[in-house]
Amino acid sequence: MKEALLTDLYQLTMGEMYLTQGKNDQSTFDLFMRGMPKDWGYLVAAGIDEAVDTVTNLRFEDSDINFLNDQQLFRSDFLNYLREFKFRGDIKAMPEGTVFFPNEPIMRITGRRIEAQFLETVLLNTVNFQTLIASKSSRIVQAAQGRPVMEFGLRRAQGQDAAMKGARASYIAGFASTSNVLAGREYGIPLSGTMAHSAVTSFPSELEAFRAYAEIYPDNTTLLIDTYDIRNGIGNAITVGQELATHGHQLRAVRIDSGELASEAVHARVRLKVAGLDYVKIIVSNDLNEFKINQLLERGAPIDGFGVGTENIVGKPAAALSGVYKLVADEDGPKMKLSSGKKSYPGVKQVWRKLRDGLLDYDVMGLETDQLDGDPLLVSFVENGQRVRLVDSLEQIRQRVQQGRNTLPGVLTRLQEPWMYSVEESQSLRELIKETRNKLEV
Amino acid sequence: MKEALLTDLYQLTMGEMYLTQGKNDQSTFDLFMRGMPKDWGYLVAAGIDEAVDTVTNLRFEDSDINFLNDQQLFRSDFLNYLREFKFRGDIKAMPEGTVFFPNEPIMRITGRRIEAQFLETVLLNTVNFQTLIASKSSRIVQAAQGRPVMEFGLRRAQGQDAAMKGARASYIAGFASTSNVLAGREYGIPLSGTMAHSAVTSFPSELEAFRAYAEIYPDNTTLLIDTYDIRNGIGNAITVGQELATHGHQLRAVRIDSGELASEAVHARVRLKVAGLDYVKIIVSNDLNEFKINQLLERGAPIDGFGVGTENIVGKPAAALSGVYKLVADEDGPKMKLSSGKKSYPGVKQVWRKLRDGLLDYDVMGLETDQLDGDPLLVSFVENGQRVRLVDSLEQIRQRVQQGRNTLPGVLTRLQEPWMYSVEESQSLRELIKETRNKLEV
Repeated sequence: MKEALLTDLYQLTMGEMYLTQGKNDQSTFDLFMRGMPKDWGYLVAAGIDEAVDTVTNLRFEDSDINFLNDQQLFRSDFLNYLREFKFRGDIKAMPEGTVFFPNEPIMRITGRRIEAQFLETVLLNTVNFQTLIASKSSRIVQAAQGRPVMEFGLRRAQGQDAAMKGARASYIAGFASTSNVLAGREYGIPLSGTMAHSAVTSFPSELEAFRAYAEIYPDNTTLLIDTYDIRNGIGNAITVGQELATHGHQLRAVRIDSGELASEAVHARVRLKVAGLDYVKIIVSNDLNEFKINQLLERGAPIDGFGVGTENIVGKPAAALSGVYKLVADEDGPKMKLSSGKKSYPGVKQVWRKLRDGLLDYDVMGLETDQLDGDPLLVSFVENGQRVRLVDSLEQIRQRVQQGRNTLPGVLTRLQEPWMYSVEESQSLRELIKETRNKLEV
Repeated sequence: MKEALLTDLYQLTMGEMYLTQGKNDQSTFDLFMRGMPKDWGYLVAAGIDEAVDTVTNLRFEDSDINFLNDQQLFRSDFLNYLREFKFRGDIKAMPEGTVFFPNEPIMRITGRRIEAQFLETVLLNTVNFQTLIASKSSRIVQAAQGRPVMEFGLRRAQGQDAAMKGARASYIAGFASTSNVLAGREYGIPLSGTMAHSAVTSFPSELEAFRAYAEIYPDNTTLLIDTYDIRNGIGNAITVGQELATHGHQLRAVRIDSGELASEAVHARVRLKVAGLDYVKIIVSNDLNEFKINQLLERGAPIDGFGVGTENIVGKPAAALSGVYKLVADEDGPKMKLSSGKKSYPGVKQVWRKLRDGLLDYDVMGLETDQLDGDPLLVSFVENGQRVRLVDSLEQIRQRVQQGRNTLPGVLTRLQEPWMYSVEESQSLRELIKETRNKLEV
């Protein structure tokens, strides 16, 4: 869905105003996050590639124009302008998978005012959500300490698009697989799945259900053992595991989806070991998040993998990031707003990152014209309306997330009460802020 | 997007198992909510019509089959089965907009086991999210006490589909309008919008920005007054309002988007009154939810309308409902699971609602064969794979929500600590539960 009308009405009314006023000069807008959810110490940029493709391909169809005409809000010269609408400007952005912090621009859009303003809604819709999920998933991956995490969120995702983009964002952040078959096809994410409780209740007994499943997938079966009584369930799984073993197959895993996961995992591990089935993995699920996973592993629960659904796919507890899109400069110079608690940073900016011994030393936000030490994080994606940067593969992005996370000191990545890193401001930016504010407050 | 592969992998592996085992008998599944978010006293069914259309049109394309074949998980007889896949069963459901409670089935699907099981993921994905938003929006509408609420969530929605379906769900629950232009076109929802801070910062001064906007939309302007200093902002709005008045136009509204909304609204109302512009409405926004709106009105803030974005469109704080889909009966009889904290109700059921003096007296869940007093809430949508019920118009659904909410006593609709209503169980259902459990626990 790359529909031009998926936008806020005010983008169009403002566009009409700018056109009528002849105010269609070159302008620059920053997309940045005002803050982070509680306990989060960093963010992972996602949705950038899709956002860029969407906005460079944005066009108004005749049916769009007709609908707008019917609203009796717009003059014909503006509707004619929209017929020819195309983003012809420049976009710099952080490559997908970059770790970043609040107030740092992650996209910077320069173009004619009407074009650049119009991109606000669609860019925010795309980047806010995918960055939320990539960042949340990254925390979950950290908590799992190298154990595979499976994405199971499709049924609780906020619609179909969220399920797809959420599966993708989870994968770039380090999830091992998804249960979402379409996401597997579209993005090449490895697929995984187990069985539902209804597969068990479909049979006269749990044992018969387990046998039926193992018969079909003798080397690829994960048995869900908690439909009735979990202690009987592990017994039935062991029976089937031993039957498989006598035919040269290996039961892959058991899955626990309710109750006290840590103690049930210990119980299952002991029973499996005694039965000579120590190779059988133990997978747990049930409203897991980074804190619950961390707690399970802190307690030494013998768990080999996690299925994570709701909490990840909707990005709980925040469920939304505070991404905004602000005018920072136009032909009259730098721009900022001063609204209570909602300030913005003026000027055409860049962010430089300086590492020391492989760890983040500092990020500094300065003016594009500054010559600062470190690597610039905003790179060119679009010039004169044309994409100039190749789309990264999911594997490249995955690596970028992992490498970026590895550069963060533990005080920023810890799951609770991390330090809140604040990007530094260059000398020239500080002066520009002061100057711009003084002018506005006169 | 009506893609058959938008499903969990296990729906397919279970399907293969059922086919291989010849277990494709008639089965019934219930879709219900396990509980409600904190402080919620009722839910509003939504997404039903879309869910029904999606599943009755579900087909596997050749490209889907080819992808599945490449996974090397499925035998050719199952892939051939999928080529002919079509839901041929029956669906009963609560009409969209029905108010309901946890554990009540809101959809009941009967059909061949493989077909009926396969619908799980897509039904949950559709109904969970839309019911979440309709229920959240209904609370916000209550809090606004008849004042119009505008849906502003597009930029923070979890993707494009969530923005569209969320705007629709908000409207059926009683929102007055949306800023989402595409939702306006697709669903016929009234559109509304104001202006962005960037419209103000685009001009050398706030007053010039206000004048430019008012010139274009002399009878349809809402001025955003908090970009710099809100007390100056209201002064500039008054200047423009008076200029409009001398030309026979009326400034429509001012909008406050930051700071202490109640006291700023009082200040703005006094200044507008003194200036002879008492007809100008005061609109507020800024991370509003039902509690904040309630508090503003409790304090007597002179506010005429609310713009609500993030908190509504992502359904905070829960962000997901606990909708599940459980096998309740097949040719072997009633089915249930006993997992710790995750029980299900056996049998082919109906829910009857009994009103007394226009207020909810009780809901009772019984077996389809029961003859109970009250109106049955589950009505037939699909028979033998064919839709048999017309799609309700949005206005019909909106009315149903309002009427349903009016039947709820205040103890269920209050915004904090409402009573937790539990559906009653009929005598026959209670006996069936006992019997089924006894059999399973043997």
